[in-house]
Amino acid sequence: MGGVGEFELLERIRQRLGADGPRVAVGSGDDASVTVPGGATATSVDALVEGVHFRREQASLAQIGHKALATALSDLAAMGAEPGEAYVFLGVPPDLDEAGCLEILDGIVALAAATRTTLAGGDVTRAPVLTLATTVVGHAPAADDFVTRGGARPGDVLAVTGELGGAAAGLLLLEAGKEEPANLVERQLRPQARLAAGRALAAIGATAMIDLSDGLAGDASHLAAASEVALDIDGAALPLADGLRAVAAEAGRDRLELAASGGEDYELLVTLPPDRFEPAVDAVARTGAALTRIGEAVKGQGVVIRRPGGAPLKATGFDQLG
Amino acid sequence: MGGVGEFELLERIRQRLGADGPRVAVGSGDDASVTVPGGATATSVDALVEGVHFRREQASLAQIGHKALATALSDLAAMGAEPGEAYVFLGVPPDLDEAGCLEILDGIVALAAATRTTLAGGDVTRAPVLTLATTVVGHAPAADDFVTRGGARPGDVLAVTGELGGAAAGLLLLEAGKEEPANLVERQLRPQARLAAGRALAAIGATAMIDLSDGLAGDASHLAAASEVALDIDGAALPLADGLRAVAAEAGRDRLELAASGGEDYELLVTLPPDRFEPAVDAVARTGAALTRIGEAVKGQGVVIRRPGGAPLKATGFDQLG
Repeated sequence: MGGVGEFELLERIRQRLGADGPRVAVGSGDDASVTVPGGATATSVDALVEGVHFRREQASLAQIGHKALATALSDLAAMGAEPGEAYVFLGVPPDLDEAGCLEILDGIVALAAATRTTLAGGDVTRAPVLTLATTVVGHAPAADDFVTRGGARPGDVLAVTGELGGAAAGLLLLEAGKEEPANLVERQLRPQARLAAGRALAAIGATAMIDLSDGLAGDASHLAAASEVALDIDGAALPLADGLRAVAAEAGRDRLELAASGGEDYELLVTLPPDRFEPAVDAVARTGAALTRIGEAVKGQGVVIRRPGGAPLKATGFDQLG
Repeated sequence: MGGVGEFELLERIRQRLGADGPRVAVGSGDDASVTVPGGATATSVDALVEGVHFRREQASLAQIGHKALATALSDLAAMGAEPGEAYVFLGVPPDLDEAGCLEILDGIVALAAATRTTLAGGDVTRAPVLTLATTVVGHAPAADDFVTRGGARPGDVLAVTGELGGAAAGLLLLEAGKEEPANLVERQLRPQARLAAGRALAAIGATAMIDLSDGLAGDASHLAAASEVALDIDGAALPLADGLRAVAAEAGRDRLELAASGGEDYELLVTLPPDRFEPAVDAVARTGAALTRIGEAVKGQGVVIRRPGGAPLKATGFDQLG
């Protein structure tokens, strides 16, 4: 660990932790961190492993730290949770020194501050490659204030926040050694969890919600299966990221396929009763994001993404009943 | 991942999770697991990395799983917490197939069942070496029911549960290719968190507590620093593991030094007001463990471990005042 012992590094990390969150009674540095949740909690774990999820040549250490927390917080956004505490495991490879560890931490700390998340604890050890596993805890007054994947009903509107395909396009650009267009590269390197939109959608009556980490097609299948409905998606309605068309064309890729399968956009896919859709558009707009209707939940199972005037783009076990 | 996709493996793992704990409202399989803590929580993260903390040649996969959860639960024991939920990040190397992953999980599940811990969620990804990071959440009615490292006062009795040096002796045996004496190898491969003893000590008035993961000398220093006291330890009083003397002699090692510095015993080091020590001995005995007085807290700072009739075994910044 570049001459820095684990204990010393942990101590220096602790000095940067804001372990004085509203629910934290005993911060990092004891055997455990003590909190008083005062309601229901939503807990999720998300890991980033070097060579699997990122490459240090393509992202700064602060960006890697940011992404580790952002991807975990995105799961809380999809529950409609208020972010509370984060606990970070950092596996430090031999070629990363203390300054590098602190740069990663800076990326985590900045996003934690922006999202009012308390970095309440963690563990640091040696590891062969840079490894981050982030456990996040979010809060709500009661368990049924959270939105699961399982509550969509036939007739619900299916909608998505923001834009799709930007992160996939950004990855294509990075792999081609490009850093422009910046908005697409930024989507890949600095994803944002839609926390405010998630809370707004929960408050307004979302019936089911999931964040788009694997890609629309795959994540929609998870929501459909958990809710025991089919999802009928209009490919022409997908809100494509600005600049996606040009990047897809240059790479010889189908832009709709990139938007539907690319993953890592960390937008929210949500179902709403039809009469809640327009109020939801307004509520999400107040958080700075668009909400676009892309289809509906119907009786049956599976997911279809229809392409205008052609064969379905994706049909994952789609079977509409009745 | 041996031909198994991450999603399929996660699904199979979920089928083995007992996500129906007393506080779990929504189990693994949604974006996050939902719990209703109903009091104060203690949260800790502990990671095991192949090549750093264990070798697959020396431990079965089930033992590695057991140890990953046990070392995390030991932090809860040191808080006096009732174990609640565990969230496991599993990094799967290329040479580990699905059956291997499930064997690791079996080790985790068995210990979770024995300690009434709910495996409530986690994440599985590829990784270059087997990596486990376990986040555990324990509970108590209120935050001040937990015992921190910081409450020891001059005059308190310093005591330790169980035996010391067994895990270090077990490691010496394993590194020499031996599997006997089994009690010592077992201490290394299958550590037990002193959860019941920790709760008993908290209930009876422990002023400070820490689990012995790094070794008595180092962990006592953490407790001394957090409590702003000095700890004066009688080396002759240390409860040595059965068989330690012979293993130390054969390895040419000082048995007291092994007991004081070896680490990984996961016993509890605790301070108690003098009038609470005898009741604590009885209370800990009812959990199946001994509690041995090994010294006292005094005004000053640092730790000394005195050797009978010689120079101190360890003196880490020891400075007794007054």
